[in-house]
Amino acid sequence: MKTTTILTGLQPSGDLHIGNYFGSIKPFLDLYDEQKDSAKFYLMVADYHALTSVRDGSALRRNIYNIVRDYLATGVDPEHVTLFRQSDNPDHMELGWILDCMVSVPFLMQAHSYKDKVTRGLDANAGLFTYPMLMAADILLYNTDLVPVGEDQRQHLEYTREAVTKFNNNYGEILKEPKEVILKNVGVVPGTDGQKMSKSYGNTIPLFGTREEIQKAVMSIVTDSTGDRPENVYAIHSLFRSKGQLESLYSEHTGKYKYLKEALIEDIDSLIAPMREKRNDINDGDIRKILAAGAEKARGISSITMEKIRDVIGINI
Amino acid sequence: MKTTTILTGLQPSGDLHIGNYFGSIKPFLDLYDEQKDSAKFYLMVADYHALTSVRDGSALRRNIYNIVRDYLATGVDPEHVTLFRQSDNPDHMELGWILDCMVSVPFLMQAHSYKDKVTRGLDANAGLFTYPMLMAADILLYNTDLVPVGEDQRQHLEYTREAVTKFNNNYGEILKEPKEVILKNVGVVPGTDGQKMSKSYGNTIPLFGTREEIQKAVMSIVTDSTGDRPENVYAIHSLFRSKGQLESLYSEHTGKYKYLKEALIEDIDSLIAPMREKRNDINDGDIRKILAAGAEKARGISSITMEKIRDVIGINI
Repeated sequence: MKTTTILTGLQPSGDLHIGNYFGSIKPFLDLYDEQKDSAKFYLMVADYHALTSVRDGSALRRNIYNIVRDYLATGVDPEHVTLFRQSDNPDHMELGWILDCMVSVPFLMQAHSYKDKVTRGLDANAGLFTYPMLMAADILLYNTDLVPVGEDQRQHLEYTREAVTKFNNNYGEILKEPKEVILKNVGVVPGTDGQKMSKSYGNTIPLFGTREEIQKAVMSIVTDSTGDRPENVYAIHSLFRSKGQLESLYSEHTGKYKYLKEALIEDIDSLIAPMREKRNDINDGDIRKILAAGAEKARGISSITMEKIRDVIGINI
Repeated sequence: MKTTTILTGLQPSGDLHIGNYFGSIKPFLDLYDEQKDSAKFYLMVADYHALTSVRDGSALRRNIYNIVRDYLATGVDPEHVTLFRQSDNPDHMELGWILDCMVSVPFLMQAHSYKDKVTRGLDANAGLFTYPMLMAADILLYNTDLVPVGEDQRQHLEYTREAVTKFNNNYGEILKEPKEVILKNVGVVPGTDGQKMSKSYGNTIPLFGTREEIQKAVMSIVTDSTGDRPENVYAIHSLFRSKGQLESLYSEHTGKYKYLKEALIEDIDSLIAPMREKRNDINDGDIRKILAAGAEKARGISSITMEKIRDVIGINI
């Protein structure tokens, strides 16, 4: 009997890079391997969250297909993980609204996602502003116990728990408080310039790039000509090999930056090549079928939660 | 061929008083009589809007039944007016979210409904804050041309048009710009103390009160003992009789406050008595059937709009 529910999601907001893989996909797959006998897993494509930033319809559609293809290629098994799309289940929007009615405007103004935008002098849209309550709905609909997140996303779960408290204090114990599970080994994945790998910094190595694209990205890694060890190369390389292996490789080839970069290319490509191949075999029809099946499973669970919620708030007549 | 769509809604937030009748229901019925041959009418029970203020599940449920019963008793014909409940159509929530993603937080901060709350030193909830975009969704889903509103609600339509502009500028001409129709003869309906009739002032005359309740309310009308004419009585009375009729009645019975109040009770009761009787004949089962039929009609129209919207934003795959 599976007694734990684990849910995670990813926004279909662009091509994945190896930072996404090591920061989010691999930890999810590891967690799955570790807990698959005791836990049910939900993996959500958060396409309506992506609408807070993507205003190009064709891009969003393409990104949705791509992210599902990416998940499948990296090893997610839709037979055992409920892989579904947020927009295929209207319960998300409905519970999002209900939770909006439970929390105050000043409370949402303290959310990082909103504050960051304002700090950068930008006008946040109202979707970005209420985003934490839609995310809370995503989690709560499935009676989720655990949400795998990086350290920097801890606040999301605090917001979800606050919504649970507000709701349950008023209407009784209906919603289940989720906990974060801070993903192991997820430090900041460094980019080609040593900063955090991020699309907005232009310092990424594409996850499903061709060998040529990987080569190009690795060759562009910024190296400091004064040191013996190219720190930025080493930092990325440490995602692929143990410390022991790296130490001997890098001390044996002190100063040979080109050699070390080529070794890194080899290591990246041997991880990616089989996934890239698998990815090419997945067509759009497969993806639609998988998402339709996932949506049906997801709605089967969320509708039970919504029934209880609609009862206590007085919407069921 | 009916070429115009007219939509209006009312929040199920408590018992109706004659201010609601003369300020909102009667103008709607008059408009219906005037335009029924050329226009399709939608009448929405805005129960998810009510959640921004009603946190008592039983009260909300009771209010939903009551408002439908009230509409039907006052003469709304569900065969010809699509009478439906917001919460029965998930498209409202979905489009509400989409429009939230189109408008900025500072824009919503200028909305009267939000500003009024803040001015009174209260924490607005996030539902109240994004309320104008849910209202815009209510209107836009049905390709509404006209929305009957009082003068004080003009801003709602401005907000809806702004959302249309933002959406269409980005995605093409999908949403139709609605116009307000400022209701004729709707001044401020005075309460028993001369202020605007409002539940929050405790100065109402119940619309479906018993004769005794009407008597009690009218007898409590504040009169100024120095004048010849009881102005507050006269003001309410003018909702029921023409100026000419009232002038002769009030000049014939100068100073006879009790007599004039009794005449007013008679006039109120002769309007209400038949509606009260009709209202008692409507049971909960009838209401559920009417709402189910209305929801089906409403979804039939809104689903066409949503299909177009989902296409252009990239959610249809």
